[in-house]
Order: sequence, then C-alpha cells, then structure tokens
Amino acid sequence: MVKIGIIGAGRIGKVHAKAASNLNGAKIIWLADPIAPDLEETAKSMGIEKTSKNYKDILNDKEVDAIFICTPTDTHYTISMEALNFGKHIFCEKPVDLELGRVKDVKDLVAKTGKKYMVGFNRRFDHNFMAIKENIDKGLIGKLELIQITSRDPEPPPISYVKVSGGLFCDMMIHDFDMVRYLSSSNPKSLTAIGDALVNPKIKTEGNDIDTAIVSIELENGALAVITNSRRASYGYDQRAEVHGELGALSCSNDTSNTLVISSKDGIIHEKPLYFFLERYLNAYKMEIEIFVDSIINNKETPVTIEEAYQSLLLAKAAQKSLIENRKVYINEL
Amino acid sequence: MVKIGIIGAGRIGKVHAKAASNLNGAKIIWLADPIAPDLEETAKSMGIEKTSKNYKDILNDKEVDAIFICTPTDTHYTISMEALNFGKHIFCEKPVDLELGRVKDVKDLVAKTGKKYMVGFNRRFDHNFMAIKENIDKGLIGKLELIQITSRDPEPPPISYVKVSGGLFCDMMIHDFDMVRYLSSSNPKSLTAIGDALVNPKIKTEGNDIDTAIVSIELENGALAVITNSRRASYGYDQRAEVHGELGALSCSNDTSNTLVISSKDGIIHEKPLYFFLERYLNAYKMEIEIFVDSIINNKETPVTIEEAYQSLLLAKAAQKSLIENRKVYINEL
Amino acid sequence: MVKIGIIGAGRIGKVHAKAASNLNGAKIIWLADPIAPDLEETAKSMGIEKTSKNYKDILNDKEVDAIFICTPTDTHYTISMEALNFGKHIFCEKPVDLELGRVKDVKDLVAKTGKKYMVGFNRRFDHNFMAIKENIDKGLIGKLELIQITSRDPEPPPISYVKVSGGLFCDMMIHDFDMVRYLSSSNPKSLTAIGDALVNPKIKTEGNDIDTAIVSIELENGALAVITNSRRASYGYDQRAEVHGELGALSCSNDTSNTLVISSKDGIIHEKPLYFFLERYLNAYKMEIEIFVDSIINNKETPVTIEEAYQSLLLAKAAQKSLIENRKVYINEL
Amino acid sequence: MVKIGIIGAGRIGKVHAKAASNLNGAKIIWLADPIAPDLEETAKSMGIEKTSKNYKDILNDKEVDAIFICTPTDTHYTISMEALNFGKHIFCEKPVDLELGRVKDVKDLVAKTGKKYMVGFNRRFDHNFMAIKENIDKGLIGKLELIQITSRDPEPPPISYVKVSGGLFCDMMIHDFDMVRYLSSSNPKSLTAIGDALVNPKIKTEGNDIDTAIVSIELENGALAVITNSRRASYGYDQRAEVHGELGALSCSNDTSNTLVISSKDGIIHEKPLYFFLERYLNAYKMEIEIFVDSIINNKETPVTIEEAYQSLLLAKAAQKSLIENRKVYINEL
Repeated sequence: MVKIGIIGAGRIGKVHAKAASNLNGAKIIWLADPIAPDLEETAKSMGIEKTSKNYKDILNDKEVDAIFICTPTDTHYTISMEALNFGKHIFCEKPVDLELGRVKDVKDLVAKTGKKYMVGFNRRFDHNFMAIKENIDKGLIGKLELIQITSRDPEPPPISYVKVSGGLFCDMMIHDFDMVRYLSSSNPKSLTAIGDALVNPKIKTEGNDIDTAIVSIELENGALAVITNSRRASYGYDQRAEVHGELGALSCSNDTSNTLVISSKDGIIHEKPLYFFLERYLNAYKMEIEIFVDSIINNKETPVTIEEAYQSLLLAKAAQKSLIENRKVYINEL
Repeated sequence: MVKIGIIGAGRIGKVHAKAASNLNGAKIIWLADPIAPDLEETAKSMGIEKTSKNYKDILNDKEVDAIFICTPTDTHYTISMEALNFGKHIFCEKPVDLELGRVKDVKDLVAKTGKKYMVGFNRRFDHNFMAIKENIDKGLIGKLELIQITSRDPEPPPISYVKVSGGLFCDMMIHDFDMVRYLSSSNPKSLTAIGDALVNPKIKTEGNDIDTAIVSIELENGALAVITNSRRASYGYDQRAEVHGELGALSCSNDTSNTLVISSKDGIIHEKPLYFFLERYLNAYKMEIEIFVDSIINNKETPVTIEEAYQSLLLAKAAQKSLIENRKVYINEL
Repeated sequence: MVKIGIIGAGRIGKVHAKAASNLNGAKIIWLADPIAPDLEETAKSMGIEKTSKNYKDILNDKEVDAIFICTPTDTHYTISMEALNFGKHIFCEKPVDLELGRVKDVKDLVAKTGKKYMVGFNRRFDHNFMAIKENIDKGLIGKLELIQITSRDPEPPPISYVKVSGGLFCDMMIHDFDMVRYLSSSNPKSLTAIGDALVNPKIKTEGNDIDTAIVSIELENGALAVITNSRRASYGYDQRAEVHGELGALSCSNDTSNTLVISSKDGIIHEKPLYFFLERYLNAYKMEIEIFVDSIINNKETPVTIEEAYQSLLLAKAAQKSLIENRKVYINEL
Repeated sequence: MVKIGIIGAGRIGKVHAKAASNLNGAKIIWLADPIAPDLEETAKSMGIEKTSKNYKDILNDKEVDAIFICTPTDTHYTISMEALNFGKHIFCEKPVDLELGRVKDVKDLVAKTGKKYMVGFNRRFDHNFMAIKENIDKGLIGKLELIQITSRDPEPPPISYVKVSGGLFCDMMIHDFDMVRYLSSSNPKSLTAIGDALVNPKIKTEGNDIDTAIVSIELENGALAVITNSRRASYGYDQRAEVHGELGALSCSNDTSNTLVISSKDGIIHEKPLYFFLERYLNAYKMEIEIFVDSIINNKETPVTIEEAYQSLLLAKAAQKSLIENRKVYINEL
C-alpha cells in the first residue's frame, strides 16, 4: 500500500486527491495546505486522516512513500528538493520551475536519489491523444511528416495570474511542446515563435505577455510541427491534434458532454466541447495517478520523467527567445 | 447513511456494487449470491463486510435499509415481495417479471408498504437521451410529432439465454418502450409489430423468438413512434433516438471511446460505437444508483417507479400479441 | 440526335428542359404548355425553336422521337396513351396515374408498342442513394435485414394541392416505396400504415389526407423495412436511408450547400440540408434525362420502367387501405 | 455578347471552355493551341467555330473581346502584354509570372489600357471558403485573431514539373497566400517559412524544391496566420481553413462525392475528400468565368485583379527568401 501525502488542496489538489482516493494499492494519509479554508472538510469527505497547514509535517512522516505537489509553481522547486532528500517519490504538477537551472537541480537530485519523479503532463493520458500516439507507434501512417496542434483556452486568465504564470509559453504551450515530443518521439531542433496580445491588450501592457501565438518547429527526425495557442475560445476548451505521415493522417477533435444534435430553422447545432481542462482531462488525471502509483509499486519508470519536463521548458524558453529576438532560434543555443 | 444489501454478484450486480461503493450517504453492508465463486473476493475488493449464499440473511438484517435485486429475472418477483414485507426499499433490475399479474402484485404491495421501488431503466440516465428529454421538456421542438428509436445489440445472445429471456420484446425492446414513454411523456394507444429471426434462424426454430423487429406505435398524445431492434450490429452497440416536433428535431448518436479519425487511401475512418451496454451506460448506472439512494435519504419519488415497469411490460406483451396475431393491437385489449 | 418535345413548362418541366438542353445526342425542339405565361421566353432562353399551347402539335410532329410529360398528374394517362400510339418514347413524371387500372393500361400499351417508357423516380439517381445501392450490390453488408427510410418535406403543401395530390402515400411516400424496392431488389409482401395530420389538421379535415406516417413492411426476401414521412422539417428537406445487413450497415445523410461550421458560445453550428427537392436532386434530374436519352440512342432498357411505377403505386394503395381499414394489408389482396 | 478566345486547350483550358460555353452573354469563338492533338475535336464538341495553332490569330481578330490564358506559366507574361496592347480583356491562370518585375509590367499596362485583367485564384469562388468569408464580413466572429490554412495535394508532381513550377511557394502555396489575404482583408507584414522534401527527397536533390512547408505570418491588421502545405495526402485533396475571432470560429472541411457511411467491424468509414482540384473546384471554375464575363458586360471591377496576383507572388518570394536565409522576412524588404 503506497502511502500518499498531498501538498496543496486547491482545485488540482482536489482532483488528484479524488483520483487517488479510489485507487487500489494507494492510500492518502495527509492533506496539507497553508491557507485552504476547507482543508478539514475536504480531507474528511475523502477519508484522509491527517491534515496540516505545514507540508513539512508530511515530509517528516516516515510512513509517507510519495507526495503530490499541487501548490503554486514558485514552491515546486523547494518542495521537490526537500522531499527528494526525505526519500519521497514525487508527482509534481507542471511546470516544475520556470528556471532551467533549477529544473536541472531537481533532475540531478532525482538521478542521485533514484526516487520516482513524475510530472503532470496530463494530456499524454487523454484518450484522444493516446489513440493518435498508439496508431503512430503501430506504423499506421508510416514516417511522420507534419504535426499540427491547436490549443485554446475558453477565456484568458486574470492579469494577476498572467504576471506569475511564467508567460504563455511556460504556462500553456508547454503542454503542447510536450505533446509534439510525445507524438513525434523526437526533439525539436529549432523553432520560430510569433505572438501578440490580441484577446486582451492588458495581457501585454500590464502582464508583459501574449495571448495568441504560433510556433513552427523543425524536429530532429526531419518532421515539421506547428502549434497554435490562444487564451480565448468562446465555444469551449479546444484541444486538437493532427498528424500527417507518408501513409495518411491521424487526427482527434474535442470531447463533448453528449451527442445531441438540434436541427431547426437556425441550423444543425451540435454540442460544444467540454468547457475546460478539468472536464476534458478528468479521466487523464485519474490515469496518470494510477500509473504513478503503479510505477512505485512495481518499481517501473514513470511515463513522464523530470527529463521530459526539462525538455519542454527548454522549448518554452526557446520560444520566448524567438519572440523577443524576432528570429528563428536553435534549441542548442540555450 | 443508507445501508444497502446487494443480491446477485454477477455482471450487473458488480456494476451496481461499484457504483454504490463510492456514494456519499450510502454503504453496502451485504453481498449475497448463491453460486458466485468470487463472492468473497468481490466483497472484499469493494469493502463490503458481510457475504452470504442466502439473500434471506440480508432481509433478516434490520440494519439494511435497501436492497438491489441483481439476480435472474425469474427470482425478481419473489425477492421483491419478500423484501417489501421486510420493509426494505428496492432497486430492481428490469424486467420485474414476465407476467403482468405478478408485476401488478408488486405494484400493489409497493403502494401498501409505501417503500421506494425503482426499476433499472438505465437509459433514462444516459447523457444523450437525457439531453434529448431536457430539450423536449424545455419546448425546444414544440409539440411532438414523431419518435424514431434504433436499438441494436452487437451480437445475438446464446439460444439458452433466448429461451429464458422472455423474448425480444420483454428482454430488449422493453427498454425502448420505456424510452418512448419517457421521451413522449405519453402512453401508447396501439401498436403493430413485425419481426423475424434474420440474424440467427435458430433463435426462431429453437428459441421460439425473433431477433429483428419493427414496432410502430400510436401514442395517446397523438404523436407516432417507431422502434427498430436487431440482435446484431457488427460495428458495436447501436442506440440512437430521433425526435421530431413542430419546431425541429432532436437526435443523438452513439458514444465512442475517442474522437480519433484515420484518413488514408482506405477512407476516413471514425471510431466505432462503444461495444455494449456496460461501456455505453456506465455513467447511467452510476447516476441511477445515486438517484435511488437520494430518493431514500430525502424521501423523494424515484424517477422510475414500478408503474413504469408495468406499463413497459404491457407494451412488450402487446407487441408479442401483435406479432402472433398478425394485426394491430390496442393496448387496452390487454 | 434524339428530338425531344417537352409537355409542361412549369417548375419540373424547366428542370428537365435545362438538363436536356446541355445533352450531347439530344435536342429539344418543342415546348408546349396551355397556360404558362412565360412559355416563349423559356423556350427562347434554352434555344427551343417551337412552342405550342397544344401538346398534340408535338405528337403530330413526325420529327419528334420522345416526349417528356411534365404536366399535372391527372393528364399523364391520356398523354401517355396518345403519345404511345403516335410512336413516341416517353419520360413521365411520377405518378403515372392514381388508378392502378390506368397504369396497367399504359403498361400494356408500352409492351405492345415496344416504346421506351421511363418514370421519374429521380432518387434512384441521387449520388447518396446510389452509393448505398452500389455497396449493397457489391455484397459489402451481406444479406439485407432492415431498411430504414426517412423522408420529410420542409413544409406542408397548400390544401388545394393536397386535394388533388392523391394523398401522401401516392404523392410523397411513393418515392420511398420505390426506394425500398430499389435498395432491396425485392417486393413487399405486406405492410402496415399508421398516420395522422399532425402538422396541419386541415390536411385531414379539408384535404382528407395525412401529413405524418409510418409504414412498416415485410419484404418477399425476408428483410424488413420501415418508412417515416412528414410534411414538415423546419431544418430543410430531409432524405436519409439506412440499410442493415449481416456484415454491417450503410447509411447516407443529407447534402448541404457547404461544409461551414460556426463555433461560438451558441454551440457548434453546421449547415442545414439543402432546402427542397430541386436543390437536393439537381444532379439526379440531369442524370435520369441523360440515361433516358442514352437508352433510346442505344436501344437499352430504361432503368425505371412503367412496371416499377405500377409496383410503387400498388404499395401506395396498400398503405391507404391499411390506414383506412386499420390493419396489416397483404399486397396480393389488391 | 462577349466574344471569347481561349489560348491553351489543355486540362484547365478545357475546364474554362466548358464553363464559358454554357454562359448566357458569352460566346467562345476561338480555341488556340500549338500542340494539342485534339484541338479540332475539342472545339467541335463545344461548338467553337475557329481554331488555330497560333494564338496571334485570336489577338488579330477584332471581334474578340476577351481571352483566357490557359497556357504554361512561362508564356503568360508575353501573351498578357501583347493581348493588352491589342485591347483585349484577359482572364489569366495563376501565376501571372514568376518574376515580380514582370508582373509589375503587366499591372502597369493593365492600368494604362484600362482593360479587365482577372487572375484565376479559383478558391475565392469555392462555396466553402466563400461561406467563411461571408460570415467574417458579416461580423459573425468579430475581430480576426488567427487564420489556419491546410492545403495538401493528393500526390507529388513529377520532378520535371517541379523544375519549371517556380517552386512550392509560387506554384502551390500562392493560392493559400491569396486565401489569407482574401479572408483577412489584410496584407502580411512578415513571414517565416520552414520546409523540406519529406515526401520525395528527389524534389530537393533534383528539383531544388521542397514538398512540405509551414509558413507563419504576421498581418498588418494585427492577426496571425499559419499555412501548412504538403504535396501528399493519401486520402485525397485536402483543403481546409479555420478562422478564429473574438466571438468564435469559422471552419470548413473537405467536400466528398456523397454522404455514405459504412459501419462494420472495421470501423465507421466515411467518404474520402474529392480527389483533386478539378473535382473540388469545379463549381468555383464556373463561377469565376461567369463573374469575369459579367465584369466585362457591366463594366465592373473583377474580384481578383492583377494587384492581387502581384501581392501573392510577393509573399511567395518572401517565403522563398525566408527558407533560404533561414530567418523571418519582412515583406517590405522585397
């Protein structure tokens, strides 16, 4: 039985807690959060025995095998380093950190301690993207030529969030960089980014960020890729991929809550995509936790390692550089 | 906390046990089955404390508030009558019985005891059919004119099952009769059935049943309906509805496990529908249990009563009569 | 060069005239209509040399090889009989007549004269229905089991039209009876019709007809079929078929004028089906004329003979009888 | 009556000849081609009276109002200049020329002579792209933010064609550059191109060209755009667009020859897109000719002027520069 402590009882902490609380072979014994007003209530509703305002109580508990880091990004590094030193396995929400050097520190410590460290690139566990990946790997479309990824949030976050988010490339497109690497089984060689604040100009003027971007990529395996991102999609969360190879194409569209079609004088109306990531990736969140726990129980490599997180952050940094310097950037420049 | 005893630990018993074991406000304390070889194991994996080969142990336990009847059809009547006399609330899989008179007995006893009695017409809790129903009730298509229901199993059951099933109308189309009543909020006035064993002739010669049928219906509210059934759909479980009204139409198609599209020289290939009812109606099974428990806790009417079961069986019987007598049958003839 | 005379310069006459005027191997030399105010203008715009208010001028013209009968239904019989006696090949709009006996007269005279007589069951030349038929004939779905045909007009005709139309079965569903025969390559053995005036009650009270109907059919080859008809579909002309066989299903949906999808907070909106038969079957109208002319030039059997028209009228009559007598009707009763 | 001479009787010449031969208000009187073996036959089948191996015969014929230039690209410039000097209106297939300076010469002469000069950007007349454009112009999605265009040929052309084609950007993507300008009503400010010969390496080694490319674009109006091109799509001609704005998105998918769906154990199979441009854009070719003739008759501006051709070539040249110099290129650098 893997004993788990969850650090962070916000939205995503609750999702992971719920997922883990129904797992055979795992038991959540701690839930820690310094400020969550409903900490006790949340813990109780999920049968979690112990709570604390201080995550160090979890690290100090020798019973705890693994922790889930579901806190704000700027705390991921410190908690990760401490927890590894305490000998805990770690499931950490993305991004591990916004500084490449600090992610490298974590990577080195993971290597040294030999603990599991899985990063929450949840989309790798989405049924649609997995179906594409499986068919690529089966050779269904032969050699890859072109990957097109569309990723649009339903609406822009508040400026306050933008300011601490690390920017669109590190906060949002980092998932898509990971997806390009996942689907292609290759690393980018170079990229070119363009972008602007077209949805909300304040994201630029006050948040020093962009909300709409296109990044075109040359991969080491010769294939090309393009990612488009926007912080707005009035019709719901829009997450699609399309992969072309020598024998054909694989694509996936969005999930909807039902298959209802309304036909009237106003047109043929289908359901909109699910509203946002919690709805769309609910099962992916469950699966990633299940796989993390299984990798501990059976001492297997986790499917998303700290190395993957490092590589995706590298691409996000390269995209920032490309945007600022207004030119193509080779990844090995960084 | 509603204390539940589950009678029957076969396929559907496990589905309901799993659904109920994650419910706030309910706790399964018994699992009974006279023959299931994995009874102990199943109970343990779901945290169910007590097991028995004899369901009467459950009825005798005063702690038990409600039972789920997940046994073969021919036992539903006896268990229902006994359990009602023991003062238990009942969730019973469809059909309650194959004899109208016996369903009426249960109906009368439910009325006398005032206990909750909910019948497992799971499709009423399917997200797709619910979306149609909600929009009908909102008046989106105005007055109803025509309902078309398609229901096809992936493959025919074994002849041994056919023989005890009560026949296609009582075993399979009974769901669709319920769906017509649910969507139309009306009762049929007459129906005409045609059908044959086109999939497997032995279903007729050995099972004295049919595997393909069309039933056309005149409803009391003036609308018309048609149901087609087949025991075969090589592409998976096929469950669709289409409702036309004065202002337009509402329809739903099948669920798929993902939105993958494969484009190649062989065509544009979409995922097949989910294979069978356990996959398609997984969430519906969860929701119906949730609603049943809630109706006990808050003393509300269950959404599918024994009366609904009676009415649907009436239609199944009328369809049998129509097929045998080769003519239109008025429901009030029965 | 086949010389053609067109009798009737209304809506459908113009469609056929336009189709024929672009055909290699055919030339329209007459356009006759007793009342069309734009007769001269229409003829001129299509390069047709001669016009007349009297169709007998066409019959008397020895140069004329073939005529198109595009006049009101009640004149089809007389013109057909006369024209056959004048040795003309005939393309006649459906229905040939509303009386079985008179269609038989025409059939007999066609046999005696050996002239081509093709009936305008245009849907047999629709790209979608043809695609289904081709794949049935290729054996793609094996033995047929169930045919479902949906046919809905965008809006009901005026009562004045209803009164002379011969009723929904002879005017509208006759196309679907033909489609069942075409797709199944079999004749119905029995049918049961239900129906009512749900769209416009005056269709019943003043027009003595219905506007919504379901007909279920037993075919001689053992398969079953069901046709639903309505005079209303607020979202456009709705013409679909679905055919199930032992190996799978073939279906077609409606054509739209483009593939535009609008995604917004109001939902995902697709184009509506094309509005009515002239739009939907434009290419089918062209193809049937092309095939008719080709059958004259190369002395081939026309793909839709007077026999087909007779058989479909037989079914329409059986459906009327079933509706009136409120029972299943065997075709050989008529 | 506009008298037309068609220069070039190859594939596209025949398409235009056929389109024009059915037009009210226009008459083709010449068909010229120096080498076409079926010149006489083609002319005869379309009722074209005069033929010549020498296009100058057409220019010398004072009766001729307008010419269609359907010859190889390297002759467009010379014929255009001569014909303008002869006072003819011109419909010219794209590209007008591969040299910017020469297109400018034509542009200047068009301005001087005041003749109509329409360029064959046929996709502007495609029902799907037009539906997107109309809804953008109606303001349905508000301010534009992002345009995504996918354009894939079914298979790569022979190397011999590649060598004289002007390269992927001038030959193929030029249509997509025009589409970006058409949909956005704006000019690009900068672009970045990446690409390679992934489909057929000989396209690079022998043809000095690429077959797969991504171009990302910053538009003057602030919106962003991305075009992907490939010379291969095993499933047929793939031509799609997707436009996002502040209020939602507009997209179109491919046309298919019918709506057939085959459902079997192998999956749910839809029709492939139409095979190539002649099928997909058949109606667009008709419409552009109709509009060209109408612009002459009613002395209206043609919807695609020589200026449009110039602007798109400019973008193609910028893309070539970006690819060769491996950097972002500003359009005003050229």
